[in-house]
Amino acid sequence: MIDFISFCDYAGTFAFAISGIRLASAKEFDWFGAYVVGFVTAVGGGTVRDVLLNATPFWMEQPSYLIVSGLALLFVIAFRKYVIRLDNTVFIFDAIGLGLFVIVGVVKTLEFGFPMWMAIVMGTITGSFGGMIRDILINEEPLIFRKDIYALACVFGGFVYYGCTLLSLPSTLSQFLAAISVFIVRILSVKYHISVPVLKPPSPPRRK
Amino acid sequence: MIDFISFCDYAGTFAFAISGIRLASAKEFDWFGAYVVGFVTAVGGGTVRDVLLNATPFWMEQPSYLIVSGLALLFVIAFRKYVIRLDNTVFIFDAIGLGLFVIVGVVKTLEFGFPMWMAIVMGTITGSFGGMIRDILINEEPLIFRKDIYALACVFGGFVYYGCTLLSLPSTLSQFLAAISVFIVRILSVKYHISVPVLKPPSPPRRK
Amino acid sequence: MIDFISFCDYAGTFAFAISGIRLASAKEFDWFGAYVVGFVTAVGGGTVRDVLLNATPFWMEQPSYLIVSGLALLFVIAFRKYVIRLDNTVFIFDAIGLGLFVIVGVVKTLEFGFPMWMAIVMGTITGSFGGMIRDILINEEPLIFRKDIYALACVFGGFVYYGCTLLSLPSTLSQFLAAISVFIVRILSVKYHISVPVLKPPSPPRRK
Repeated sequence: MIDFISFCDYAGTFAFAISGIRLASAKEFDWFGAYVVGFVTAVGGGTVRDVLLNATPFWMEQPSYLIVSGLALLFVIAFRKYVIRLDNTVFIFDAIGLGLFVIVGVVKTLEFGFPMWMAIVMGTITGSFGGMIRDILINEEPLIFRKDIYALACVFGGFVYYGCTLLSLPSTLSQFLAAISVFIVRILSVKYHISVPVLKPPSPPRRK
Repeated sequence: MIDFISFCDYAGTFAFAISGIRLASAKEFDWFGAYVVGFVTAVGGGTVRDVLLNATPFWMEQPSYLIVSGLALLFVIAFRKYVIRLDNTVFIFDAIGLGLFVIVGVVKTLEFGFPMWMAIVMGTITGSFGGMIRDILINEEPLIFRKDIYALACVFGGFVYYGCTLLSLPSTLSQFLAAISVFIVRILSVKYHISVPVLKPPSPPRRK
Repeated sequence: MIDFISFCDYAGTFAFAISGIRLASAKEFDWFGAYVVGFVTAVGGGTVRDVLLNATPFWMEQPSYLIVSGLALLFVIAFRKYVIRLDNTVFIFDAIGLGLFVIVGVVKTLEFGFPMWMAIVMGTITGSFGGMIRDILINEEPLIFRKDIYALACVFGGFVYYGCTLLSLPSTLSQFLAAISVFIVRILSVKYHISVPVLKPPSPPRRK
């Protein structure tokens, strides 16, 4: 079971990093810049979570996340021409990683003694803030707030976990069901182009 | 007194969240994205302060800030057509919140044992960094650095608080006078279009 | 020796702040906004490092960094017409500061008990994230990822320090050699226009 979770973790990290590296390459970043964007996309959400929880960021405890991000860079460089065809595979990995990241965020927050509502918030941050920071770095409006259901899939997974604990389901089963929920919501929303409604501007905007 | 402070806190949170939500809607973010931008606008400054102070971010201790931000979203959705007419009301709430947020930042920093100059810096961060993060998220240049007197009103409030302590005024009175100072400077600067001078470019810029 | 290090620290802070202030002025930020951008450019990298290390950010312990940034603002305002001619001087200071900042980051991380690979990462963050945050604030794509060798010079300096410790060189000598390495790589890359290869887009990008 631990091996399966590790596999999902690395696959998700790899897929998240690839999404960052590809977008950085569209902006003509250099190799090192693309690596940094890929790495930050992969670990950014968990880092924000850990800083807010006052914990040592998870990627500082072992170099594997740096290495997996480096492999993602090599992969994009080496298989440049084939990456388009692999889009669906990367998307699946990305959705698997998303489900896992959300649950890791939920469980870690509960372990730190926070209540369930904070765990749901932290799960959502873990899953979605990496992509948000990526879009800030490449100077685009964060797409997680505008396209398909992404962040909201994380919230949904948190509520599924909450529901499972209300039913007193075993911890491992709850985690599995919640991660699967995130995965399914994410896949369905992309397949059927389901989006959260756009908020229409109420008036000429005014910033303070 | 506590009830009055709580009212100002919630009113300020509500007004800050509305400013974030409205600007997000101008960028056609979806409802959830607009909610996140509104929430981050409201709590971002205090969160940066608390992370720098190595304290648990204030909004993680009770769900009220998440809820007030949600109410702000519902408000913008429900009263879309009337929000323009309410501009002045929201602006007043925003200025009230600004005054309160600055003082909360100053007092909390002093309680953590930092000297007065750090308290003034942290009060300014508390008041102004939420709007700065908001503008980063919606991919605009931060307006707090370019329009009216905003961040500098926070600095001014910090110095007023410092002056009050030099005069050995009671703590509550000092806080009240400092918050009112922020409020008045903010209102006057908008009413009379008072701005900090623009820094003219010295030369073709060069980034490293 | 301590005086020399302090001089490099202040000179580097001054040069980093000037780079932020000049770019802010190109965006017509007001004086206070330019000051904030300059300050964040100078201390941003070390602040991210300290937050990740769970340490109190270094600039919160004494006001000198705020003051040096203020002097940088006055310098840009007062000598606006001459700043172009001083470009090379500022660039040299900037490279000196970069070398020093990287080593400070490496040494501090090792003192916190982290292994060498983390020290190299943290040295790179210390040297390069201030410029990255600066570019986020002024709403540009981070140039450190696209122009000359900047962040990679930091990585190189970290490896030089690592090599020196493998050779059991004295600590002060190791630090000096590593800082000089960063400085030389940076100077040579600009003088001879050496860049990291650009990552070519593999396909029409797709953000999640």
